[in-house]
Amino acid sequence: MYDPRYASHHLAGGLQTLALPAAMEDFESHFYDQTLDHFNYLAESYVTFHQRYVVNSKHWGGPGAPIFAYLGAEAPLTHNFSAAGSFIIDIAPSFNALLVYIEHRYYGDSIPFGSWEEVLRNSSTLGYMNSQQAIADYAEIILHIKERFNASDSPVIVVGGSYGGMLATWFRLKYPHLAIGALASSAPILYFDDITPHDAYVNAVTKDFRDASETCYQTIKKSWAEIDEIASKPDGLYASAAQYNAPPSYPVTQVCTAIDGSGPNNDTLGPIFAGVVAYYGDMPCYINEPTNNKPSETYGGWDWQTCSEMVIPIGYGNDTMFGSEEAFNLTKFSNECREKYGVAPRPHWVTTYYGGHSIKMVLKRFGSNIIFSNGLKDPYSRGGVLENISDSIHAIYTANGSHCLDLQASNVTDPEWLIAQRKEEIHIVHDWLTTYYKDLQAV
Amino acid sequence: MYDPRYASHHLAGGLQTLALPAAMEDFESHFYDQTLDHFNYLAESYVTFHQRYVVNSKHWGGPGAPIFAYLGAEAPLTHNFSAAGSFIIDIAPSFNALLVYIEHRYYGDSIPFGSWEEVLRNSSTLGYMNSQQAIADYAEIILHIKERFNASDSPVIVVGGSYGGMLATWFRLKYPHLAIGALASSAPILYFDDITPHDAYVNAVTKDFRDASETCYQTIKKSWAEIDEIASKPDGLYASAAQYNAPPSYPVTQVCTAIDGSGPNNDTLGPIFAGVVAYYGDMPCYINEPTNNKPSETYGGWDWQTCSEMVIPIGYGNDTMFGSEEAFNLTKFSNECREKYGVAPRPHWVTTYYGGHSIKMVLKRFGSNIIFSNGLKDPYSRGGVLENISDSIHAIYTANGSHCLDLQASNVTDPEWLIAQRKEEIHIVHDWLTTYYKDLQAV
Repeated sequence: MYDPRYASHHLAGGLQTLALPAAMEDFESHFYDQTLDHFNYLAESYVTFHQRYVVNSKHWGGPGAPIFAYLGAEAPLTHNFSAAGSFIIDIAPSFNALLVYIEHRYYGDSIPFGSWEEVLRNSSTLGYMNSQQAIADYAEIILHIKERFNASDSPVIVVGGSYGGMLATWFRLKYPHLAIGALASSAPILYFDDITPHDAYVNAVTKDFRDASETCYQTIKKSWAEIDEIASKPDGLYASAAQYNAPPSYPVTQVCTAIDGSGPNNDTLGPIFAGVVAYYGDMPCYINEPTNNKPSETYGGWDWQTCSEMVIPIGYGNDTMFGSEEAFNLTKFSNECREKYGVAPRPHWVTTYYGGHSIKMVLKRFGSNIIFSNGLKDPYSRGGVLENISDSIHAIYTANGSHCLDLQASNVTDPEWLIAQRKEEIHIVHDWLTTYYKDLQAV
Repeated sequence: MYDPRYASHHLAGGLQTLALPAAMEDFESHFYDQTLDHFNYLAESYVTFHQRYVVNSKHWGGPGAPIFAYLGAEAPLTHNFSAAGSFIIDIAPSFNALLVYIEHRYYGDSIPFGSWEEVLRNSSTLGYMNSQQAIADYAEIILHIKERFNASDSPVIVVGGSYGGMLATWFRLKYPHLAIGALASSAPILYFDDITPHDAYVNAVTKDFRDASETCYQTIKKSWAEIDEIASKPDGLYASAAQYNAPPSYPVTQVCTAIDGSGPNNDTLGPIFAGVVAYYGDMPCYINEPTNNKPSETYGGWDWQTCSEMVIPIGYGNDTMFGSEEAFNLTKFSNECREKYGVAPRPHWVTTYYGGHSIKMVLKRFGSNIIFSNGLKDPYSRGGVLENISDSIHAIYTANGSHCLDLQASNVTDPEWLIAQRKEEIHIVHDWLTTYYKDLQAV
């Protein structure tokens, strides 16, 4: 994350920003007067800020019917919404569900202290930007919505992708009284401390390219010496292509077709640039490409989050297609963060607060109702939960899926395995709801 | 809590301070460099303070053997220790358990900013004094101890009484990866919002006295008019006698025997004072009686906690032996707190963060390994969990038990029902450990 070779894209931020779904017009926008500091009861902690959420009650069955709450991640609400947020729009009618999307604090229109520029002016204001505060926000807003809609008996399912998928998982674990289940797509909740080998991410990127084309892999591997000379580093490209290697375009294949197809010559960089063109030509609209002239909290905010709490230790290993074997170096990383923000990260706080070590043993006997969905082409899947943990904590993955793919809108070009993955998710959520209503009736 | 009639004693603070157990000499005292603010990553949040914990490894079976962690409540460590903390000393040998007692932040020798006097000088320092920060402290220290003792595989059971019992419950719910189970004695986790009727506490006190002696109850009931005249209010006495109505002395019976036995006369107050003498004569050593000349954080700290987060809405109702029918008035309470501390309480935050509403439905399908123990003579038991919730979330109560009674040292005078209650607790903890080791072996 800290290395420029892959720091150029976000965990979830690289999702394609599709045009806003037509259904957007069915959403009402609201602002909630949110507590800035949920864990300190004095002074500035009593400051509040306006947090945005949008609601679609078009399909809702009324009090008692389910609520699907999409938990925003490190991007403005509209980006979450339009990228990985469409699946629940597709399925809302059949569940008679109320749809809620909540923006993450410090992103989009939910920035405390007025604006991102203002936050940057006094960097101590960043202290409140972390996942514990964020899920506490979601707790307050979900309760608020249940009250507003007279829906105290309505079961809530939280949904999120990537970092948002971590938040959905953690929300279910920390606030089981507010959400009866979580659908967590591409959530690398195990990519902390040393739970996952630090080079798992780049190994997976390498594998994706090698699987697509051995010559492509070789060409990329050879290219680094030349590239280093001209100081241009397309690692981010490869990682992003692998992470979002989604149908129907399959960026890795596209990139490799371009690289392989640029003809036999002794020039390595020619093919590489053909690959770059092929990729960006197809996916012009990443949210990490600034779309307006404001300094972007989407960049800066996530950088702060990774430099404080969300320390995801990705390092290089041997035998990858990348031109580096540099391991993740926590000391170096910490020093860089200290230089930027004046404080060092707390790299072990995520696993202290949320767990992660021995997760199978811990969650086998504690907790329930979580779906961990992944696509194995996505290098972040290596830090995901890929084994069923209990009767109600499921791992559903596809060999060819990419980052947050299942949460995107369904499409006529969807392959069978993707349709099957979504079907299984729907089936499980349906079961959770059936059990919930049975329990409710028994009370 | 706010009313002087029962504000004179703490939730757990009224526990008898017995002489320190002889076993105390087997404990080593340590200080941990604790994070002041676990939920803010900048600036003053990086301040740390020294938090005390003591460890007894005399009976410990070594790495892999269990750890019993007693979670401190609103009192200095030594008070917790000596009162409700003795049960685990009694049972440690048979479990080969490591014993750990952790002091709650802002009490005893674990006061940030140097001293309680210093805290009071700048009241914004109180902002960090709350249960979320406290259980996060426990998380860090438990991890630290596991590391120090090379005990990563050692299962931890957290134990606590009264407010400390709430902390133990909440710790198990929020940090299941750090504690495999919780023994929560006399923890009124449901005495928040409107989950428990606000007059349940005083109704229970009344019942205790009436059960002990109808004439005693009548005498007390008649006494208020006279007492009000002389402006001395012994409600605290009655509540405390009921809460700690423990064998072998049974304070309620003692008080009533004194009241009833002071002979027939038309003077109501004479018998009442006989009761007061009988009670305090027997229990001279409450920790809420200042034992030295320092301003006491044990008073002031808990007052702050109840005025910010731990809003336990106890009010009077009809038909009690008390001279008031005043309901709990949140507005009035909030105003009083605002006057004292400059901010109003967040009365719904406990149930937002920890839950409590529909607890049976929520925890039936989520969570495991909690024992809620109670004694029904204790008026706080009315806010406790008194029904089994699942196969591994147990309610174990006794008709004649008092506040935290089961956690105290065993005694030759213990009645059969108390011995049976403790036996059942031991049995359940034993089962948790057996299952844990079976799971561990299977990995």
